[in-house]
Amino acid sequence: MNKPNIVILGAGYGGIITASRLSKQLGHNDANITLVNKHSYHYQTTWLHEPAAGTIPAEKARVPIKDVLDLNKVNFVQDTAVEIDRDAKKVVLENGELEYDYLVVALGSVAETFGVPGVFEHAFSKWTVNGARQVKEHIEYMFATYNNLEEKKDELLTFIVAGAGFTGIEFVGELSKRVPELCATYDVPREKVKMYVIEAAPTALPGFDPELVEYAMNLLESRGVEFKINCPIKEVVKDGVILANGDEIKSNTVVWATGVRGPEIIEKSGFEAMRGRIKVESDLRAPGHEEIFVIGDCALIINEEINRPYPPTAQIAIQMAETCAHNLATLVKGGSELKNFKPEIKGTVASLGGKEAIGVVGTRKLFGSSASFMKKVIDNRSLFLIGGPGLLLKKGKNPL
Amino acid sequence: MNKPNIVILGAGYGGIITASRLSKQLGHNDANITLVNKHSYHYQTTWLHEPAAGTIPAEKARVPIKDVLDLNKVNFVQDTAVEIDRDAKKVVLENGELEYDYLVVALGSVAETFGVPGVFEHAFSKWTVNGARQVKEHIEYMFATYNNLEEKKDELLTFIVAGAGFTGIEFVGELSKRVPELCATYDVPREKVKMYVIEAAPTALPGFDPELVEYAMNLLESRGVEFKINCPIKEVVKDGVILANGDEIKSNTVVWATGVRGPEIIEKSGFEAMRGRIKVESDLRAPGHEEIFVIGDCALIINEEINRPYPPTAQIAIQMAETCAHNLATLVKGGSELKNFKPEIKGTVASLGGKEAIGVVGTRKLFGSSASFMKKVIDNRSLFLIGGPGLLLKKGKNPL
Repeated sequence: MNKPNIVILGAGYGGIITASRLSKQLGHNDANITLVNKHSYHYQTTWLHEPAAGTIPAEKARVPIKDVLDLNKVNFVQDTAVEIDRDAKKVVLENGELEYDYLVVALGSVAETFGVPGVFEHAFSKWTVNGARQVKEHIEYMFATYNNLEEKKDELLTFIVAGAGFTGIEFVGELSKRVPELCATYDVPREKVKMYVIEAAPTALPGFDPELVEYAMNLLESRGVEFKINCPIKEVVKDGVILANGDEIKSNTVVWATGVRGPEIIEKSGFEAMRGRIKVESDLRAPGHEEIFVIGDCALIINEEINRPYPPTAQIAIQMAETCAHNLATLVKGGSELKNFKPEIKGTVASLGGKEAIGVVGTRKLFGSSASFMKKVIDNRSLFLIGGPGLLLKKGKNPL
Repeated sequence: MNKPNIVILGAGYGGIITASRLSKQLGHNDANITLVNKHSYHYQTTWLHEPAAGTIPAEKARVPIKDVLDLNKVNFVQDTAVEIDRDAKKVVLENGELEYDYLVVALGSVAETFGVPGVFEHAFSKWTVNGARQVKEHIEYMFATYNNLEEKKDELLTFIVAGAGFTGIEFVGELSKRVPELCATYDVPREKVKMYVIEAAPTALPGFDPELVEYAMNLLESRGVEFKINCPIKEVVKDGVILANGDEIKSNTVVWATGVRGPEIIEKSGFEAMRGRIKVESDLRAPGHEEIFVIGDCALIINEEINRPYPPTAQIAIQMAETCAHNLATLVKGGSELKNFKPEIKGTVASLGGKEAIGVVGTRKLFGSSASFMKKVIDNRSLFLIGGPGLLLKKGKNPL
């Protein structure tokens, strides 16, 4: 009865799939598996731009953990990890402690502010279920308020998206698709609504094929989105943003989407990290720790071909989870031959709202409805990997 | 070709029915009929507690004017009346002027603050389509925000209704019915939500039968509503209300429903008025003005039986409109025998949310689902009077 304790921190793509695979690869007598998560549900981070803009209900983007894990095989603890005590091999939670023999750190990421002041105070920066619902309700409140003021305030109808990366573009895609409907519902003249995407880098969607980037920008511009590229934000203030060039844009709604960094707990627990991410060994273990795996957005791996880190994506998190579960099961069963992780990038598709998207699948560029079709296939695939055909039926997206 | 100009100010219950009846009682050669309204739509004021709480869409409570009036017979001007120049017989609008031979003042009412400071700054007090939508979105934003704050703020989930009259009770009825659904949607524990109804008078629903009042209060209390009766509010502040007894209740949502007064334009135009309402002659004309009719909430008439004013209700406004149209048509056609107005109170029913209501119809007291049935019959009747069977089909409520 000397079963090892496996503790998995986080039920995002990485954590929940690790737990699911381990519960199948290990028997009751092999190990105690415990999953710790702040909420009782997993959510599809890559879908959150949709409920944030109000184009799908937030409910659709989340899954109760009990619906997708066999809780006879995995202990679920709803709590928040505060610190990892690597010497004592225990995790300090807000409401307790858990000892581990093996640990999986799959705690996702938080907004990267790049030191810009005012982001946490004045911008919406949480890409969570709670955060997405707040953005949606805030936007609707702005529309609902506009006609109630004697002196019309245009900043109520000015929406700023900071960052033209994947998340910023996908969010403004949904928002721009929904604005005509919001205008009709709240009797707001369409021309009063302004949408800005502000990006410090010299291009939108860095890393994407330029032809696809141009397609996306043209499409979004045709829906009224204005791009400010090569235009760093100096500060987020109560009533808008101040740009590095000195200009101000008044807005009551700044959505922060400039990218992510690892969560605070990583550095607090003494791991060596770059922007909160741990550069893992090829078997996904933290350097110097045979018992700690790090996956998903917390893990940093280098794309040797371009000598730059792979971006943190759901696709890679899911693949890491499969390798992590395999390696953990091997160790628990006394093996030592661990797999090396190598991401296999099948494709990348960014939705632009409605039936529009852009992307690359294999070597093929996709535009418009064929890209949108692929995006939904990808979303459905992640549902299937997490919860099998039952979850796919419940939450799946119609690709047609 | 010396047709008189009839100008009707306001497209509430009184104005729109006057316009509708006149357009049938008078021919093209009898008069020019012009209806002036701030919006392009009429709305059902007595329904607004429903969209304000989010139990029906705001769209359902309004009707485009063009859908219910024959605009070949009635000129519609979308504008706001600023002042009535009684000597020059013209109405000054925000964007122009209109001369009249006959005027119908049917401009409704605005919130009565009773001199309590802070109402317009910190409370929701507009019972309009715009106002109702704002209350709804504000409430949802409070729920959506709650879980995003590290330090939970209970004032986000504390809702104060000032006034236990008809509007306050009907609104809290809808809100209390919706709260369990909002808690489920936003993952908020039900016990965190507080609802207060605060009333300065010694009873809720003054004028209602005490047995009905008790039924209503018991029902609402069972849904978590707390009543503070005989408890005047001293001030509305940014984060709640200060009571006359010195207590404070923290809340981000104060809905003001302590009753109404006539609009500012009445006193500004030099009419003698009590709380903005003109005490009309028995033929509904303003004292000293053979050419000005005043109806609906702007008109004050005394219930001789109790020597107190009739409350401003849709029922009376609709009956006034019928008399007003008849009297105007008589005058235009050269007659002089005008009808005296006498309200015929058919019944009064207050909805309490869901299938609950209380009321009196004739001499019969109604509770629960039979009262709720009658309430919907009354709502449907007003739709029928305004827009005939077509409107009833489009916007009618299923009484079962």
